[in-house]
Amino acid sequence: MSAIRHALNTKRADDFAAWYQEVVSAADMAEESGVRGCMVIKPWAYGIWERMQRLLDTRIKAAGVQNAYFPLFIPLANFEREASHVEGFAKEMAVVTHHRLIADGKGGLIPDPDAKLEEPLIVRPTSETIIGDAMSRWVQSWRDLPLMLNQWANVVRWEMRTRMFLRTSEFLWQEGHTAHETAEDAKSETLRAIEMYRAFAEDDLSLPVVVGEKPENERFPGAVETWSIEAMMQDGKALQAGTSHYLGTSFADAANIRFQGREGTQQLAHTTSWGVSTRLIGALIMTHGDDDGLRVPPAIAPFQVVILPMLREDDGDANLIAYCEELRAGLVRQQAFGEPIRVLLDTKPGKAAAKRWDWVRRGVPLIVEVGPRDMENGVVSLLRRDQLWNEAGKPAFAAPSREQATTDIVPLLNEIQHGLLNEARRFRDERIERGIESFEALATFFAEDKRYPGWVEVQWSRPAGEALDAVVERLKALKLTFRNVPIGAEPADGTCIFTGEPAVERILVARSY
Amino acid sequence: MSAIRHALNTKRADDFAAWYQEVVSAADMAEESGVRGCMVIKPWAYGIWERMQRLLDTRIKAAGVQNAYFPLFIPLANFEREASHVEGFAKEMAVVTHHRLIADGKGGLIPDPDAKLEEPLIVRPTSETIIGDAMSRWVQSWRDLPLMLNQWANVVRWEMRTRMFLRTSEFLWQEGHTAHETAEDAKSETLRAIEMYRAFAEDDLSLPVVVGEKPENERFPGAVETWSIEAMMQDGKALQAGTSHYLGTSFADAANIRFQGREGTQQLAHTTSWGVSTRLIGALIMTHGDDDGLRVPPAIAPFQVVILPMLREDDGDANLIAYCEELRAGLVRQQAFGEPIRVLLDTKPGKAAAKRWDWVRRGVPLIVEVGPRDMENGVVSLLRRDQLWNEAGKPAFAAPSREQATTDIVPLLNEIQHGLLNEARRFRDERIERGIESFEALATFFAEDKRYPGWVEVQWSRPAGEALDAVVERLKALKLTFRNVPIGAEPADGTCIFTGEPAVERILVARSY
Repeated sequence: MSAIRHALNTKRADDFAAWYQEVVSAADMAEESGVRGCMVIKPWAYGIWERMQRLLDTRIKAAGVQNAYFPLFIPLANFEREASHVEGFAKEMAVVTHHRLIADGKGGLIPDPDAKLEEPLIVRPTSETIIGDAMSRWVQSWRDLPLMLNQWANVVRWEMRTRMFLRTSEFLWQEGHTAHETAEDAKSETLRAIEMYRAFAEDDLSLPVVVGEKPENERFPGAVETWSIEAMMQDGKALQAGTSHYLGTSFADAANIRFQGREGTQQLAHTTSWGVSTRLIGALIMTHGDDDGLRVPPAIAPFQVVILPMLREDDGDANLIAYCEELRAGLVRQQAFGEPIRVLLDTKPGKAAAKRWDWVRRGVPLIVEVGPRDMENGVVSLLRRDQLWNEAGKPAFAAPSREQATTDIVPLLNEIQHGLLNEARRFRDERIERGIESFEALATFFAEDKRYPGWVEVQWSRPAGEALDAVVERLKALKLTFRNVPIGAEPADGTCIFTGEPAVERILVARSY
Repeated sequence: MSAIRHALNTKRADDFAAWYQEVVSAADMAEESGVRGCMVIKPWAYGIWERMQRLLDTRIKAAGVQNAYFPLFIPLANFEREASHVEGFAKEMAVVTHHRLIADGKGGLIPDPDAKLEEPLIVRPTSETIIGDAMSRWVQSWRDLPLMLNQWANVVRWEMRTRMFLRTSEFLWQEGHTAHETAEDAKSETLRAIEMYRAFAEDDLSLPVVVGEKPENERFPGAVETWSIEAMMQDGKALQAGTSHYLGTSFADAANIRFQGREGTQQLAHTTSWGVSTRLIGALIMTHGDDDGLRVPPAIAPFQVVILPMLREDDGDANLIAYCEELRAGLVRQQAFGEPIRVLLDTKPGKAAAKRWDWVRRGVPLIVEVGPRDMENGVVSLLRRDQLWNEAGKPAFAAPSREQATTDIVPLLNEIQHGLLNEARRFRDERIERGIESFEALATFFAEDKRYPGWVEVQWSRPAGEALDAVVERLKALKLTFRNVPIGAEPADGTCIFTGEPAVERILVARSY
């Protein structure tokens, strides 16, 4: 197998971070824009994001949540509300201070000093407060509840060190914000949202995740409960792929979301919020990518099948294209994952081999090459992106008849979708260590020389306050963090590896993005 | 008919501007956000925008255009490029100057003086220059052309006087940007885009439009040709509903979009751009709204049918809901406009009559009320939003059997979709005056006391430069503007009403938004 000439220069095992950057670039996903911390999301990655949006949006709407759109700019006063009880408040945010540019008289432009805003505006880092303001206007009575809103938007958090998709100053996300009559309703919505994310991640993105509650120190500031889905990347680190928060009544109190209850008294609403972002594209790369580039799960692939006629720029091309067109037409009449199959017949000029490897790097699930000899024999050359190489280290082309290919492709797409999930789940499950019973053993497991150790699930006594802070500091020294307390973990039956007290539950510890 | 008690307080004929604001508010479309010039787009209007996006996006993709995403922030230098040849450059734009907020020590927050950006960033007013930068990186050879990109995004243009949907500081839009090998290709793309907008406006939004080329003075700055679709509002004013620009090679020159041509020489690309925005929602209101609120064309209605059981909060409710649920289930199995019918079974608490009028104001195409007596008789009470009142001035309910309603609704939705288009087209066609042969007659037609005069199509000699400026000034004194030179207008056969010279074509003159 060492004879394989992979489509990327960098291998995951050699330098995972450099490999990641190479996939981002070689799979045509994104690039630096020239604006600090902001990336250009190129058509292939944006197409994946659109598919993610479509599938998640359907799940969001099915729960009765309504989409709306709130302003990009948030008044300073909304943050002052929040800052009033925060010592030494300082937040990295983009601040708009002027509303006009004028010539500086030296060939350049400057913000017009006469157009300074009376109160600076903040480019939204999240829309909690401005949506809270709207909810306070829209909610009068218990009859107006639940109020369940979602927004697809760009947000900005000034970042000093950025990394494509994982940490950028501007990113795209959805943020759900809901208000409820009772704590019970709001908690149930919090869990509905995180379960929706689990199903979306596993069924649509082939991304296996662990659902669980975050410990106190990892909660969203002000939240009563924070739940997350955690995914394991191929370097063994954890990536938080989505969160859902039960916010109690404190956000409703700050934004004044009050309603007349069934008994006529004024009450505070119980609120939740939940979100996922373009970070998921980073998770996709680090879960499904291999040494030949990205592998996109078929359900979210902008094209599920790319047909590549081996054109020679001669008279034979028209026949070849007609032969391919018939395959395309036969495919798009069929449905995969509830929608017509997405097929590209790629007739762009360029060498067929170069084009093949471009599509391999982008991770299109199925490549169908058709040369003149294929046409003569009534067959096509079919390459599965998830089974790229044969035992001789060559591309593992199959040669079904064109009719057979037309029939086989729907089941193949389903097989690839499930195969990617199972492969990633197996990878993860093999790397969750449950046998560690002391802090020293934990430290040894994560010793620097072991590069891909995975995660550890340990028993703990759920210390709070300063006792928890002390534990978090000890983990931090090992570059470790708590991830979550998995739903469905075994009950505790031993001793907390941090405090020595009787354990009450199990919690995941990992390095993380 | 004077007995009708309309669902709005303001009538179009009494105060069109106040009526518009009332629809925006009473149809639950949008509201002020508390942030200057920025509105909150509420779920009903956002749902309409989502439908518009979906339908237009399908048309965009069918043309081979790819979606991508570019940064919100644009470097100052990109505008300096543009400003270098603009005397007295001054533009209303949101300028980001700082990247951190800190406490001011007096309980407030201020931009951190230590976090001042070396170069201010501009919140995009359009993405021409930053997409041009990307194109210059992506285009090397003629084989990379055409490069056809589109972005769905928010943009900001600081506005002093704002009006919901029509002129707001932040708005949502799509911007298509394409680069081509030849002028011919780019011009043909410019026309493809404007024809796409025409079909989208007329077929999806029931919005009749006139397609034509803008005169020189109305062109996008730097464009060689600007094409528009123009729609007539019910106050007789024109609203530019979409534009498409052929930009020649000047934008490619500024952004350095060069490629190696087929003969090996370096050439400049020919570029285009085209866009529509949430302004279309304003056009929708002013075209289809009536004295009872909005009327949403079925193809873009978030719900096409709302079923309202007349609940009494007693034991009978469950049966009534079950009866309605059967109708809902029968409807969602059917398709209208190529997609499953969108039906809401509205069981929210509240009085049935109040809920009915809320849905009337929002403009849902069909309302189906079901009371206990309807259920006993196996019928439903069906109300068409486009034929709301009977001759007695009462809501014009029909009473088909539930089965009949299930069958009738698809054709009804199609009938309403076409009916709205025909009604608006008739309204417009009756108000385009073609008999005006002098500037004086033009002035008389638009005299202040005539409040809904419509448009005038006149013959003109297409003056250029200063001669055109003089004509534009004369029109401006009458608060009039040139709209476009309609494709398909009669050929000129007379004298220019502005210059007295022989006319070369016909052009539309109107008051406009």
